[in-house]
Amino acid sequence: MGVVVQKYGGSSVADAEGIKRVAQRIADTKRRGNDVVVVVSAMGDTTDELIDLAEQVSPLPAGRELDMLLTAGERISMALLAMAIGNLGLDARSFTGSQAGVITDGAHGKAKIIDVTPGRIEQALAAGAIAIVAGFQGVSQDTKDITTLGRGGSDTTAVALAAALHADVCEIYSDVDGVFTADPRIVATARKRDHISYEEMLEMAACGAKILHLRCVEYARRYDMPIHVRSSFSQKNGTWISDEKDESMEQAIIAGVAHDRSEAKITVVGVPDKVGEAARIFEALAASQVNLDMIVQNVSAAATSLTDISFTLPRADGQAAVAALTAIKPEVGYASLMYDDQIGKISLIGAGMRSHPGITAKFFSAIASAGVNIEMISTSEIRISVIVNEAQVDDAVMAAHSAFDLDADEVEAVVYGGTGR
Amino acid sequence: MGVVVQKYGGSSVADAEGIKRVAQRIADTKRRGNDVVVVVSAMGDTTDELIDLAEQVSPLPAGRELDMLLTAGERISMALLAMAIGNLGLDARSFTGSQAGVITDGAHGKAKIIDVTPGRIEQALAAGAIAIVAGFQGVSQDTKDITTLGRGGSDTTAVALAAALHADVCEIYSDVDGVFTADPRIVATARKRDHISYEEMLEMAACGAKILHLRCVEYARRYDMPIHVRSSFSQKNGTWISDEKDESMEQAIIAGVAHDRSEAKITVVGVPDKVGEAARIFEALAASQVNLDMIVQNVSAAATSLTDISFTLPRADGQAAVAALTAIKPEVGYASLMYDDQIGKISLIGAGMRSHPGITAKFFSAIASAGVNIEMISTSEIRISVIVNEAQVDDAVMAAHSAFDLDADEVEAVVYGGTGR
Repeated sequence: MGVVVQKYGGSSVADAEGIKRVAQRIADTKRRGNDVVVVVSAMGDTTDELIDLAEQVSPLPAGRELDMLLTAGERISMALLAMAIGNLGLDARSFTGSQAGVITDGAHGKAKIIDVTPGRIEQALAAGAIAIVAGFQGVSQDTKDITTLGRGGSDTTAVALAAALHADVCEIYSDVDGVFTADPRIVATARKRDHISYEEMLEMAACGAKILHLRCVEYARRYDMPIHVRSSFSQKNGTWISDEKDESMEQAIIAGVAHDRSEAKITVVGVPDKVGEAARIFEALAASQVNLDMIVQNVSAAATSLTDISFTLPRADGQAAVAALTAIKPEVGYASLMYDDQIGKISLIGAGMRSHPGITAKFFSAIASAGVNIEMISTSEIRISVIVNEAQVDDAVMAAHSAFDLDADEVEAVVYGGTGR
Repeated sequence: MGVVVQKYGGSSVADAEGIKRVAQRIADTKRRGNDVVVVVSAMGDTTDELIDLAEQVSPLPAGRELDMLLTAGERISMALLAMAIGNLGLDARSFTGSQAGVITDGAHGKAKIIDVTPGRIEQALAAGAIAIVAGFQGVSQDTKDITTLGRGGSDTTAVALAAALHADVCEIYSDVDGVFTADPRIVATARKRDHISYEEMLEMAACGAKILHLRCVEYARRYDMPIHVRSSFSQKNGTWISDEKDESMEQAIIAGVAHDRSEAKITVVGVPDKVGEAARIFEALAASQVNLDMIVQNVSAAATSLTDISFTLPRADGQAAVAALTAIKPEVGYASLMYDDQIGKISLIGAGMRSHPGITAKFFSAIASAGVNIEMISTSEIRISVIVNEAQVDDAVMAAHSAFDLDADEVEAVVYGGTGR
């Protein structure tokens, strides 16, 4: 008996049938003697439909109003979910982010949680009720305006509430069974992990695994809140994310292979190899709010004293980056810019690689033997990432997955749900 | 220069085009130097769609959750409207009922406004912004739960805010040009009234004129807030509702002819003509929450000491009333019940009739000459209502309208909008 926080994504509550199915699962959890808090996203495509409406009335809507608009989506799903649970004979009460005490800063569209004061949620639990909370939203501390948390917001709401309520676990439900050693749509023999550390999950998320957003994992690690990632379409155990060391479990060297097709690469060609030139380039990019990922500077060719600087960035930031670099061209005096959005990033992640030499060589060799050329390399203590041609991402992922004996004996992965994801 | 409160109904903001058209009108009002507060309903059929979703997940949803659900409708329309105004270069900020300080009792689905504390609205106006407020919703004083105001709720929100802000006028926009001497769909020559008193408008609303809800007119009369009913599809002057006596305006004897097809009639036949029998009947109906309108008790036939009691009620209450009366049949000992939902009510309304004798006779004579039989009669100081066969409502309305010289020289009425209303 304890507090369980469950989060259901939009594909789990896409229609009335989905809402009723989720309601039954919540009721079962409550009847097993738990205090239950549920965080819910907007139904299916609601958010996209609302954004579409906004674009029809204004090309550049005010952030405050866009947040007011989008938060209607969770308001609908949470009220319907509370009704469906009520229909099963249990008391369920829905709460907006504001009512649930999710206090944020004032950055509309990407607000950060700065405090969680769930007094009304605690009252509801004390009264024996199930609390349903709108994910993705909060209220700004200064102006009391409604805010949204941006990408990964509902997962983060769930973890933040779980931490504030000292929950036993935060269960994140979606239409996949858990965290796999690679994307099951690419590697049919990918294995589900029973357990993964926060550190490994952070690297997986940062490297393109879409199951959990970086931000939610960071929050969970900070508050040491165990997350259980599982499917709302089955009763199977999913993947536990925690710092717990399960002695009975064989410590895997490699947690998995992640990939990311959302980045682009820019190369600044012929930069004078002088102190401060690189700094001016990255200052200009930072001033344009461009988020950089991997950065590589080639060794200067002694004859010319010129160097090339390459970096990767989200494709969405490509235009802003090129504009910022073009503006400083006269000042920096580089030769030219090369922009390539046909790239993919493959990452090998595992806390075990710290103590195992030769992992890097084995990884590169596997990729080479698949006939894939490596364009850029970046490493951390528990991760190796390479940039390859986008068309060869699948080949590289499969080669790496096999090389490290991650393949299961039979196909385990099932993707559920009717949304085509 | 002053405070203007404008209310736009669902048909005025049914789609992106409607929202942009309304935004332009609001911007024009602001640019003429007014402080502008706008109350808006949910877009088109949104509320019906949400109710449909609720029915899919629960046959009897909790009132608290139904209110949480339905308030998403105005949240969407108000945010979109604020964005559309922003796109015209003006500062517009949307506020929920709760944020606007609409404090209600806790009766979900039919909450009553008990206080309006529009501090945030005043701040927005002081900052030069246009305030957009969600109609139809508030927050309960005791539990801080979201409530809805029920039928006529958005009009009532507008009048209540106008009163609290000491506005110059509360403009209610819809898809008709104003208040007419009869329904223009029945009487093509119906005339638009330039002015009508609260008292007359109250009787019109109570007698089935759908342009304004009774409750909103009652609120306006209590706070002496002038209402200007007009079309959001034209720039024409509409109808002013106030207590102002315009000396230049000829005081009409008759304000108009209203009709209502939403009622049914029940006759309790053979009630023992003893003290307290009628009381027991009406107590039973009151206990079943049945709202009665007209009540007629026939003179007792001396030979039998039995009497008949007839009353009208909303058709929606018919089943509950029959059940309540059947339950007390053994106790009261009446003979039988007659239920008739094929009736219509025609009402002649006008403050001028107080001082003009002969109005009643002229009204009855006009209806008789149209070949329409009168089944029940009820009168007040400024109104005469009769019940007729539903199929003859149009004939009776036209006859009364002509008899009192209400016809315009040419057709004035235009019904705008794309919703088929």
